[in-house]
Amino acid sequence: MKIEPRTLKGFRDFLPKEARKRAYVLNTLKKVFESYGFEPLETPVLEYEDILLGKYGDEGDKLMYRFEDNGKRRVAMRYDQTVPLARVVAQYANDLPLPFKRYQIQNVYRADNTQKGRYREFLQVDIDTVGSYSPLADAETIRMAIRSMLELGFTEFKLFINDRNIFEDMPKDYVSRIDKINNITDELEQDKAMRKLLGEIPEKYLYRFRTALKAKEPTPRISEIMDLLDPITRQYVVFIPNIARGLDYYTGMIFEIEVKGYRAGSVAGGGRYDNLIGRFTRQEIPAVGFSLGFDRIIEAMEQLNLFDNKDLGGPKILVTNSGADVAEELRKKGIDAELYVDNKELDKQLRYADKKSIPYVLIAGDKLQLKNMQSGETREGTLEELAKDL
Amino acid sequence: MKIEPRTLKGFRDFLPKEARKRAYVLNTLKKVFESYGFEPLETPVLEYEDILLGKYGDEGDKLMYRFEDNGKRRVAMRYDQTVPLARVVAQYANDLPLPFKRYQIQNVYRADNTQKGRYREFLQVDIDTVGSYSPLADAETIRMAIRSMLELGFTEFKLFINDRNIFEDMPKDYVSRIDKINNITDELEQDKAMRKLLGEIPEKYLYRFRTALKAKEPTPRISEIMDLLDPITRQYVVFIPNIARGLDYYTGMIFEIEVKGYRAGSVAGGGRYDNLIGRFTRQEIPAVGFSLGFDRIIEAMEQLNLFDNKDLGGPKILVTNSGADVAEELRKKGIDAELYVDNKELDKQLRYADKKSIPYVLIAGDKLQLKNMQSGETREGTLEELAKDL
Repeated sequence: MKIEPRTLKGFRDFLPKEARKRAYVLNTLKKVFESYGFEPLETPVLEYEDILLGKYGDEGDKLMYRFEDNGKRRVAMRYDQTVPLARVVAQYANDLPLPFKRYQIQNVYRADNTQKGRYREFLQVDIDTVGSYSPLADAETIRMAIRSMLELGFTEFKLFINDRNIFEDMPKDYVSRIDKINNITDELEQDKAMRKLLGEIPEKYLYRFRTALKAKEPTPRISEIMDLLDPITRQYVVFIPNIARGLDYYTGMIFEIEVKGYRAGSVAGGGRYDNLIGRFTRQEIPAVGFSLGFDRIIEAMEQLNLFDNKDLGGPKILVTNSGADVAEELRKKGIDAELYVDNKELDKQLRYADKKSIPYVLIAGDKLQLKNMQSGETREGTLEELAKDL
Repeated sequence: MKIEPRTLKGFRDFLPKEARKRAYVLNTLKKVFESYGFEPLETPVLEYEDILLGKYGDEGDKLMYRFEDNGKRRVAMRYDQTVPLARVVAQYANDLPLPFKRYQIQNVYRADNTQKGRYREFLQVDIDTVGSYSPLADAETIRMAIRSMLELGFTEFKLFINDRNIFEDMPKDYVSRIDKINNITDELEQDKAMRKLLGEIPEKYLYRFRTALKAKEPTPRISEIMDLLDPITRQYVVFIPNIARGLDYYTGMIFEIEVKGYRAGSVAGGGRYDNLIGRFTRQEIPAVGFSLGFDRIIEAMEQLNLFDNKDLGGPKILVTNSGADVAEELRKKGIDAELYVDNKELDKQLRYADKKSIPYVLIAGDKLQLKNMQSGETREGTLEELAKDL
């Protein structure tokens, strides 16, 4: 029986072209995180179910991939990277000096509705500082977020910052409705919706929020954080009292990054969450960090042509079938060279290079000929001479 | 209720120190694969169960993680990377010019007995050329395997090569017993065991094997492949008629790499398998490749101290609490600099650097002081002057 080759809904293959874009973005981000002294962490895809269950609200429990393994253990697939981080901090308390600054880049799994354009397997990029209440930790988080955007090539974007405390005591439903008002693109419509909503929320919940809205000024804590930013970072940061972030574990500074012209939503977000990590430990452990929406980052970069003129890798040259040793020489010179392994007519070998968009072909016969696949130009020379052009 | 922080048997967390070693090995290997013109591929961790089931024999079906997902689909977790490769080649036949040369580096999942020192989640590193019968494809595979070992710093190792065809018609059980004789370390004992086994195997299965054993000469195909190797590669390759490789899908050249002094087994292996990819397509598609045992590579490198004197990354300098802007300057100069975010006494900040083995501390007060944590020496200067030492 022939089995139909297919993938599950919400799961994706990444063929070389896509995989290269992803690798480029990841390498760029890792360099930024490393430059700030953050360190890599990896956790397993499967955890004991009780580690994850009940940590993400009812929706999380519903969307989590859970099953019984071959040894009758109840297990669950990684749903985010924050709960595993909390587990790690508790489990290796003696080996991890605090503050623990880590980045983690792994797939997470959510059996979400794919019609909303969501994936069931997607990469998360998380960077967190665990163990510090200092506003400097918040400021470094913001710096790193903005540096990440700049290094990826984004120029027109804003980091909207707020203090989750202005929603203290306000029931979640109202908070999330305030948050959603930002999705309205028209400014007048936005104002109208906000006025309407303010009329509906009982006055006792509104004191802090109204104050912030009226003063258009951040809370003292947010001001302190903003004052710690260098001028370059500072120019991308805008205080706005009506962002709230979806997750209800935030306890202080919260932020979201939006890219001008990219309408699918914020590409990154984060904040301070001082009560979450402690769930596995006996004492409260403060934390602050952010998460990049990897798929959105890629999508936004594609829309803004930020991959153009970037070297994403891939063979620079195809060496024809008879040039095995020449190919090896090129590699020793640091040139990524693919050897055409089948003994076929030259025309077929050239077509292969063309189909794979390999920019040069080295025709290895009695003489060496270098063919520029874009211009069609061919020139002869020694390997040394020709390699200089690559 | 406090939940005990713990991981599942056979699953591992990788804290920064380990994660860095892994990243170093992967980056080294990727560079080698890219230099040979191979391209990255990623496939999902979950596949429809029928894609994977029955492809790895009874043991594979038993050890596979399989379950029913939230949409009542039967799904299975990635068990190796060769079957997903076969699926991809069939599914995207129009987008992938053949030969398709890909590397794939992802975790695989096997509910194996952990008492044998096996993991249930472990990284596989696979490199394959799909769509060519050419002996040059075999030779490039061997070249790349040996180049990988050399780039990682291994010097004393051998690549044992054989032709699976010399076992043609021989029942699997005998083949696997011949294969296991290589695990006997004493040469005389090995000879004895081989003689004993040869007495047990019916003569009708032994013709080709005996010929190879007697002649101590490779089959014509293997000779052809070996003649295609450059002299540097050639010196690591040894023909040996009694390796068979565990997997029974090999159809031609097979090889294993062993590191001198590392006794846990071969660190890499591969070969030609011309009948496997075609399971999802209507025609036979030849393939050749190899797989690196990532955990064994790391273990062997640790044993041989190959990580010593290697730059595995990590912050080069800790900047004390009052030096946020200085830290930012260092990062701009390309120096990975961690900022100590809490306002604590200097002594505590130095202890943190010491615990994290950060080699330098920049004490940012009225003056800048650079402290070498190993020698204990401190000197003053401008940022420009001090940065030169880093």
